Amino acid sequence: MSSLDALIQQFTKLPGIGPRSARRMVLQLVRKKEQLMHPLIIAMQHAMEHLQTCTVCGNLDSQNPCAICTDDRRDASILCVVEDLADLWAIERSRMFKGRYHVLGGTLSAIDGRGPEAIAIPALLRRAQSREIVEVILATNATVEGQTTAHYIMDRLSDSNVKISQLAQGIPIGGELDYLDDGTLGAAIKARLSF
Amino acid sequence: MSSLDALIQQFTKLPGIGPRSARRMVLQLVRKKEQLMHPLIIAMQHAMEHLQTCTVCGNLDSQNPCAICTDDRRDASILCVVEDLADLWAIERSRMFKGRYHVLGGTLSAIDGRGPEAIAIPALLRRAQSREIVEVILATNATVEGQTTAHYIMDRLSDSNVKISQLAQGIPIGGELDYLDDGTLGAAIKARLSF
Repeated sequence: MSSLDALIQQFTKLPGIGPRSARRMVLQLVRKKEQLMHPLIIAMQHAMEHLQTCTVCGNLDSQNPCAICTDDRRDASILCVVEDLADLWAIERSRMFKGRYHVLGGTLSAIDGRGPEAIAIPALLRRAQSREIVEVILATNATVEGQTTAHYIMDRLSDSNVKISQLAQGIPIGGELDYLDDGTLGAAIKARLSF
Repeated sequence: MSSLDALIQQFTKLPGIGPRSARRMVLQLVRKKEQLMHPLIIAMQHAMEHLQTCTVCGNLDSQNPCAICTDDRRDASILCVVEDLADLWAIERSRMFKGRYHVLGGTLSAIDGRGPEAIAIPALLRRAQSREIVEVILATNATVEGQTTAHYIMDRLSDSNVKISQLAQGIPIGGELDYLDDGTLGAAIKARLSF
């Protein structure tokens, strides 16, 4: 296989990238070797060498503990529990949360045999029981697995003095009622706000 | 900027990749460093070091002359003239052409100031005038620029004994008449085949 075909094949292994997109990307890379391919190699090598999992929260960063865990301007008394790195990024983009995180790295799953130990729940319980933590926000996905995991954590933390909260469910900003699924609409009616 | 953000930003510079796709790709890469990121770095480094433009036809390959130009099983008497590497790849995928190529690297353009010298036309004329060439297929795009370029080459080769051809225009395989643009339908009617 030529080095071109090998490169295209590597790109098709990435999520959402089919053969056509991979060819387009590789074509652009080989056309602009110095401006595109070289910086991309450097960025990947840097990520490969320096990225490490934060031993405190499970975030991925070039430093350990991560930039969020070491940022003194962030509120160390609120922990936001997320399933995954992508969820942490999503919450950071909203710019509405200024506390710290705990990345589980998955959900509880009886089928896949993932128990509490497999997804950093013991570490979360230890952190939550430390004196400085006042609130734990359970920001797992609104899926069956996510909610099961949230309930498990809620149950385990019920004896402690820590406040437990979950993200509000309802109509997305800009959402049209006609296109919403019935479950979301039902939840939004049930949780309606009175003025 | 963290090495993660830097990597995401590099990916957004590729064609068709927005911030969301870039994040998805990077997330997958950092999750599977050894299985995905490392092989991708290696493939890119290999391409970076070994890919070179074939001095005969303008193709990109890890050898020069390229694998197509040096393949004795391919018919050296037919030249297929294409605008771009992507067009060469597309024709190779059709598996219907077993001759050699000439990659122009663009089209003639008065606006952008690209004359015949800028797009490898002198080299094409030299190749076409060699004794072994019997046919030149002008497979430029069916755009105004592509057709202008094809006409220019046709004009310059009109004195030589070489046979000149163009790709057939008509209805795509599986195409529905109702969805075809009028130009294509008109061309297909004009070029209709009698039985």
